[in-house]
Amino acid sequence: MKASITGSIIGNLLLVFGASAFFGGVRRGTQKFRRTAAGSPTVMLTLAVAGLVMPAAVDLFAFGSLNARPEVITHLSVWTSWVLLAVYAAGLVYAFCNNCDPLRPAGPHRSLMSRPAALTLLTAGTLLTTIEAEILIRGLEPALKALGMTELFAGVIVVALVGNAAEHYSAVTAAMRDDMTLAAEISIGSSAQIALMVAPLLVILAPWIAAPITLVFNPFEIGAIILSVMTVALVVNDGESNWLEGLQLLGLYAILAAAFYIIPQ
Amino acid sequence: MKASITGSIIGNLLLVFGASAFFGGVRRGTQKFRRTAAGSPTVMLTLAVAGLVMPAAVDLFAFGSLNARPEVITHLSVWTSWVLLAVYAAGLVYAFCNNCDPLRPAGPHRSLMSRPAALTLLTAGTLLTTIEAEILIRGLEPALKALGMTELFAGVIVVALVGNAAEHYSAVTAAMRDDMTLAAEISIGSSAQIALMVAPLLVILAPWIAAPITLVFNPFEIGAIILSVMTVALVVNDGESNWLEGLQLLGLYAILAAAFYIIPQ
Amino acid sequence: MKASITGSIIGNLLLVFGASAFFGGVRRGTQKFRRTAAGSPTVMLTLAVAGLVMPAAVDLFAFGSLNARPEVITHLSVWTSWVLLAVYAAGLVYAFCNNCDPLRPAGPHRSLMSRPAALTLLTAGTLLTTIEAEILIRGLEPALKALGMTELFAGVIVVALVGNAAEHYSAVTAAMRDDMTLAAEISIGSSAQIALMVAPLLVILAPWIAAPITLVFNPFEIGAIILSVMTVALVVNDGESNWLEGLQLLGLYAILAAAFYIIPQ
Repeated sequence: MKASITGSIIGNLLLVFGASAFFGGVRRGTQKFRRTAAGSPTVMLTLAVAGLVMPAAVDLFAFGSLNARPEVITHLSVWTSWVLLAVYAAGLVYAFCNNCDPLRPAGPHRSLMSRPAALTLLTAGTLLTTIEAEILIRGLEPALKALGMTELFAGVIVVALVGNAAEHYSAVTAAMRDDMTLAAEISIGSSAQIALMVAPLLVILAPWIAAPITLVFNPFEIGAIILSVMTVALVVNDGESNWLEGLQLLGLYAILAAAFYIIPQ
Repeated sequence: MKASITGSIIGNLLLVFGASAFFGGVRRGTQKFRRTAAGSPTVMLTLAVAGLVMPAAVDLFAFGSLNARPEVITHLSVWTSWVLLAVYAAGLVYAFCNNCDPLRPAGPHRSLMSRPAALTLLTAGTLLTTIEAEILIRGLEPALKALGMTELFAGVIVVALVGNAAEHYSAVTAAMRDDMTLAAEISIGSSAQIALMVAPLLVILAPWIAAPITLVFNPFEIGAIILSVMTVALVVNDGESNWLEGLQLLGLYAILAAAFYIIPQ
Repeated sequence: MKASITGSIIGNLLLVFGASAFFGGVRRGTQKFRRTAAGSPTVMLTLAVAGLVMPAAVDLFAFGSLNARPEVITHLSVWTSWVLLAVYAAGLVYAFCNNCDPLRPAGPHRSLMSRPAALTLLTAGTLLTTIEAEILIRGLEPALKALGMTELFAGVIVVALVGNAAEHYSAVTAAMRDDMTLAAEISIGSSAQIALMVAPLLVILAPWIAAPITLVFNPFEIGAIILSVMTVALVVNDGESNWLEGLQLLGLYAILAAAFYIIPQ
């Protein structure tokens, strides 16, 4: 389950946004996008990194091993999950409510559905996608093992390639018709949504459904997420993208994927 | 002592600047500030991170344990402290001496006191505040232990909430009257001052007063400082703040505080 | 060999760019430079950090020790090297081919030599410099050991001071005649070139010449490179430099050099 989460986060950041910047840049040259479309999710992702790093660091340094996982780590994971959810909810409020901010005039947009309905749809849709990805991995597991892939690699790669197919298609299409702002919102926004909504909801709801899940990711997953967030933050920082920046993100994905491939189970 | 320093650094960055951005943003919407007011202390803080990381890394990887602390680590701490102090002093020269920089015209400002007097006052005031915070923690220690708090948590939380009350009040007030530049200077500047002036002075002066202090912080403190500096650097990067960014910083503080709470002594 | 690579990377970032910003800033005040001149190598360097971190992390966490170095780490190093080389090559294509990008008009520039010739010269020159630096270190080794310096310190310091003398001279000269864009291209660009071209080429060519080299750097080298890249990214981020920022980078170099000095062999 955690491998799927890691795969969705780095896949959306590196593969989806990287492919958007690459194909958009090849077709349209240097593309500009609204920095807030990329900046706010970047800060959200840094927050998620903190939420992922701290339980693992406490487990590793204070309790001696990543396998110790005493009860106290579950408490910390649940608390961290509530904080991440609260900040994510505040981000939705900020995004929906243009009029909250006197400096940014509300555009003349008509909503197709009410806000509560939109929110419910958003939450249900994303949770369903994650569960579907998990089912997909379980189904593919015998085949993947026959090919010599570990569960970690399967989670990170299969989810990134298959589970996020919708994000891939819509983000790359948006980038190629020069709407890089939308491409950044889809890819970086999806990544933040997984990290700040799906992962925390799974931690909070897991005890009611199955065994408790903690936010204790392994050092490779944490390292891969930190590197992905840092690199994307640098790339989106100037509000421009080009095919080289896209290729750089795809290159980072190739390096991380190779490392995940050789990690023994 | 080190817990108070960590608490002051992350408290000023996350709680004080976060609360300023939040309350300022709720009252005034998106607020702009001079990027140099926040940018230069951010680089200063990265330097401080290097000064904190390197002695701990040498101790941990080259000498085997964070408790080894041989004489050589004291030498490294003292050298690092002199470098940090020198760079901080250069920062004061840069700030005081507008005319050094031909591109930035000097404003028509009258000083109420001479520069040496101002500098002495600044140094004495900050050192006194730190010592007062330490006395406060010692006094509160029995009460805090009765409440089940470790010394580390007490240092990080009590100092951040009580010891920096003055910064809190003045920064939030400045933000609410739309002077976000001043709020950033107070909060991020205080944080840099603790990291590059107070901590090094304590390391250098300690042998004359009590037992030697080294700059060897534990992995949690280092992790918390790195995450705080990175997140604030991302937030101030665009020269704007809003209530969501304030809330994100407060959320990071809540996650870090929970992790410090459960770390065993 | 690896110490020379680390020394070249952090030396170019901190010493060469730091000295350029410092002396340029003292003479000319705040200097502006084209952000793309600094931004693109910064992302390149983050990619290189990923390439350096992942093999070491796999070796350390999955195989138990940085000395294990099984065959699989060599495979990962070679794969990572090809990815870094491919991205670096794409960067050269991007830089040479202005017309690829419809938004950036090609300037009226005449080339003194053909592109393939220029590329061959560039590659050969940089590889030769690295080999010369290695020969220099080997020659100086007895003298350095007599002075109590470890091979690691000698590599990091001698290369940074002596091996990059050409970059030093030309970057500082460029900065002092107010061409900070060129100074950033020379210093940060050289650093990226070492990390994404020289180091990967050594890894790929080593088995044909001598013993295989892996990209497994020790934790200090990785820490020093990460801190250097992060700090330079923050400094160049606003497209301006001044003498204080130069001094901050030189201060970081002084802290890192001291840590390398006391690390036992």
